[in-house]
Amino acid sequence: MNDKTTIRRLPERAVEDRRVIDAILDEGFVCHVAYIVDGRPVVIPTLYARDGDRLLLHGSNSMGIARAVRRGSPLSVAVTHVDGLVVARSGFHSSANYRSVVVHGVGRILEGEDHAGALDKIIESVIPGRLADLRPSTRSEIDQTSVIELSLDEVSAKVRTGGPKDDPEDLDSEVWAGILPLHVVAGQPIASDDLTPNIAPPDYLVDYRR
Amino acid sequence: MNDKTTIRRLPERAVEDRRVIDAILDEGFVCHVAYIVDGRPVVIPTLYARDGDRLLLHGSNSMGIARAVRRGSPLSVAVTHVDGLVVARSGFHSSANYRSVVVHGVGRILEGEDHAGALDKIIESVIPGRLADLRPSTRSEIDQTSVIELSLDEVSAKVRTGGPKDDPEDLDSEVWAGILPLHVVAGQPIASDDLTPNIAPPDYLVDYRR
Repeated sequence: MNDKTTIRRLPERAVEDRRVIDAILDEGFVCHVAYIVDGRPVVIPTLYARDGDRLLLHGSNSMGIARAVRRGSPLSVAVTHVDGLVVARSGFHSSANYRSVVVHGVGRILEGEDHAGALDKIIESVIPGRLADLRPSTRSEIDQTSVIELSLDEVSAKVRTGGPKDDPEDLDSEVWAGILPLHVVAGQPIASDDLTPNIAPPDYLVDYRR
Repeated sequence: MNDKTTIRRLPERAVEDRRVIDAILDEGFVCHVAYIVDGRPVVIPTLYARDGDRLLLHGSNSMGIARAVRRGSPLSVAVTHVDGLVVARSGFHSSANYRSVVVHGVGRILEGEDHAGALDKIIESVIPGRLADLRPSTRSEIDQTSVIELSLDEVSAKVRTGGPKDDPEDLDSEVWAGILPLHVVAGQPIASDDLTPNIAPPDYLVDYRR
């Protein structure tokens, strides 16, 4: 809200800068993946991680993503952060502040060491610090899970920030206008009922932030 | 986490109950819409509202949803709430708690009074209480916006709740396990720089919750 002129001129903009795109991707861990089945689109949420110039999409073997990739369906993946509500003086200019990345491309199902390493990367991306505390995954566990790689070759972002962009004739309205910020926050870790006694939650959970 | 046996037996389940589905839809206001363009899937976020047995999807005229519907593309829409991280003793059982609804069908672009009324319903769904404070939308504003109706005939939900479902041989692990709850919270309303002085933010923003 500081640079009002800029914000008002460009409230919603396409972003090509890979640093901005990567920051949006790295802040999230749930994406929405779209693919085609029998000529119809299907969209589902799943876990993911960014690994350099590729996304790693988590797919249990019962899920349709890997099946769709095997059958040749291209993918579209969206990662969206909703940062607030834009409370304008008209319905028309009411909106939401958000940062969204969309990736298009043909996915590839990972195999072998790349597959096992990708699963670890997703775990570590969802909870940074967790991987070092876990036993290695077994071959059977790895085989029951798919990871689909999607290159970031075809990627774009859209970002809306700042306050409402009301029409001049609405500015003397007596109606409140501004933004309502929205945040995702973590609560206190809740121990599993079967936890070995006297184990404290690790710092990477107590201090968890995206 | 109270009914451990039930939770452990059914950590992730498909839900057909329309009351559960409606509650998930009513809690959100951003959905991900997938459609097909030139044989490829496209997924984008947009605002929506549930209105009885239909979803109302907000599409500015520059957006592809209305165009895709006009060209005959079916739609798939997902609404997802991430409720927490499932912190298991193995990577394999690490997961997320979530509630997700997916709707499939053929959209219909609303016209006339139904179109204008649907825009109002989306405004009121995103910020309950707001509509009464706004001037009516003009014909030009309405014409610059599309609303796509999607029936809830073909709708399903998936819900995962509760703690990690670790393998018996991992239960004596010295590693912490449980869940890390995640919530969306609203901050304090931030007034627009050009707000008429001495207008307080309305209660429906100060007390905003989803």
